[in-house]
Amino acid sequence: MSSTAPFQLSLADILKARHRIRDFIHVTPVLESNVLNERSKTSLYFKCDNFQKTGAFKVRGATNAILLLSNADACRGVVTHSSGNHGAALAYAAKIRGISAHIVVPEDAPAVKIEAIKRYGGIAELCEPTNAARHATAEKIQRTKGAVLIHSSDNQDVIAGQGTLALELIDAVVGLDAVFCPIGGGGLISALAIVAKGVSPGTRVIGVEPIGVADAYNSLKSGILDQSASGETIADGLRATLNEKTFKVVREFVDDIVTVSDSQIASAMRTLFQVLKIVVEPSAAVAYSAIMDGIKGYEGKRVGIVVTGGNLALDKAHAYLTCPRF
Amino acid sequence: MSSTAPFQLSLADILKARHRIRDFIHVTPVLESNVLNERSKTSLYFKCDNFQKTGAFKVRGATNAILLLSNADACRGVVTHSSGNHGAALAYAAKIRGISAHIVVPEDAPAVKIEAIKRYGGIAELCEPTNAARHATAEKIQRTKGAVLIHSSDNQDVIAGQGTLALELIDAVVGLDAVFCPIGGGGLISALAIVAKGVSPGTRVIGVEPIGVADAYNSLKSGILDQSASGETIADGLRATLNEKTFKVVREFVDDIVTVSDSQIASAMRTLFQVLKIVVEPSAAVAYSAIMDGIKGYEGKRVGIVVTGGNLALDKAHAYLTCPRF
Repeated sequence: MSSTAPFQLSLADILKARHRIRDFIHVTPVLESNVLNERSKTSLYFKCDNFQKTGAFKVRGATNAILLLSNADACRGVVTHSSGNHGAALAYAAKIRGISAHIVVPEDAPAVKIEAIKRYGGIAELCEPTNAARHATAEKIQRTKGAVLIHSSDNQDVIAGQGTLALELIDAVVGLDAVFCPIGGGGLISALAIVAKGVSPGTRVIGVEPIGVADAYNSLKSGILDQSASGETIADGLRATLNEKTFKVVREFVDDIVTVSDSQIASAMRTLFQVLKIVVEPSAAVAYSAIMDGIKGYEGKRVGIVVTGGNLALDKAHAYLTCPRF
Repeated sequence: MSSTAPFQLSLADILKARHRIRDFIHVTPVLESNVLNERSKTSLYFKCDNFQKTGAFKVRGATNAILLLSNADACRGVVTHSSGNHGAALAYAAKIRGISAHIVVPEDAPAVKIEAIKRYGGIAELCEPTNAARHATAEKIQRTKGAVLIHSSDNQDVIAGQGTLALELIDAVVGLDAVFCPIGGGGLISALAIVAKGVSPGTRVIGVEPIGVADAYNSLKSGILDQSASGETIADGLRATLNEKTFKVVREFVDDIVTVSDSQIASAMRTLFQVLKIVVEPSAAVAYSAIMDGIKGYEGKRVGIVVTGGNLALDKAHAYLTCPRF
């Protein structure tokens, strides 16, 4: 679906996505911990998509979008200018269908990102490390090869695929009072909000955003879409901004957005490592970081925590897990 | 059951243990990874008891043993001279029943161990850091307080409880060709072997032991119980030796024991961290370390991997995950 068509994602689209991608993804576990429940004075249910194929939930949306391409479109390949988890996920999904995936990567990207893309058979298309160069390179590949752009959040089929995480969580845990979810481009939380309001209307949906890139928070508070995120955060997966599609859903269905500091995020990573025994990347720790020491109004509540990915290089692990700076 | 009674653990004992402890433990997930399957040329199924309550499988056996005590015995409390995961598990299980747990701890034990015992309400009984002092202290507590000794592996009710891990794995994954399991005191692998031979006789049971403390390997090869382990390994949870009970089962039902080096164990820890996104302690990585690069005869086979615990202090995590020495 092109980005100019009206956005009208339904529960049916998400249920159809679940059937479409089921042979290619994991149904990930939901973990619990008495120690963490006591600390936060809530009952927490961690939906662990760090255990998802490619190490992140992004594979859900990328797979759904690629499986929905017509044969005529698919044979020309796909392209994206997201070099992170969405890029690796797109390479994985393209391999399932046997088509090419061009992933635009800034020249200064860490080697680990390029390795992840190549591991799944993707083609890393290097460009200068600017936003303009990333978009120009992606456009050139669309133009010269006819490749289809699959945006990481401004794409209805991608968003429908991300919603399968929400379906699994709502199925696994009955009677959730709230779900806390990281917010970056807004694709995942949009799908989550559509599922929650449709299937479990008593469940509040709370976005959590790093304070350094609080564009979604600003957009929700002001009512005007803010795409000016230029700050810094260790949660690099959340630097993307909302788009028209996701802002519309966030305004309508997301109950609140809260912000967290990098120091809270690193502290949450350490706690999840030590107590829950899971490896999470900074972006995946933000939802838990908001509630780890409790929040007024949530005492005794049943709260879902969306854990989005576990792609953490060992050198970063060292810095975040053991460095007193965080 | 006293340690002089004949050892005759049955499947029924393990099934009864599952019912007895079900409200107090997690049924832990089984994880899979295409990347790890391709590397080992097998299909691997990781039974993740690092996600178990108290961070290790030991809580299964400790809870079963404590729930089986008569009221007359229970009211006098329990004691053990194992300061590691069994000690913390015994403290947790004693709290469920509302009784005292005396955990004998060498004075030089890391603070994190004493904290784990106290977190669950256990009483840390400090002693000189020798085997003789540990046993003397435990005996004194038995004598003066009437506390019941709950040994970490020389106790039939403990072994029955550990077997619930095996039941869950065999239930979750049909048609396993083999299961690789760490071997220390031999309680877990004894129960696993009884379950496998009873329910899934085509499943080979392979013990994996650090080469520095290869007493079980030596015992199986020579046919004579070797309790002389005095070597060194980073897998400190596997320093215990077999006893008469577990040696009998291992000789009868365990198909083979293989040994691994500390460097293989640390490498497995890193791979599980980076690819499977899980935190494991060294003792919990030994089963995977034996097969991570493939073993002749296992190509294309379905192999269960027992992951026993995730209690890894951050300073150790730094050493094992990022230090080039390993």
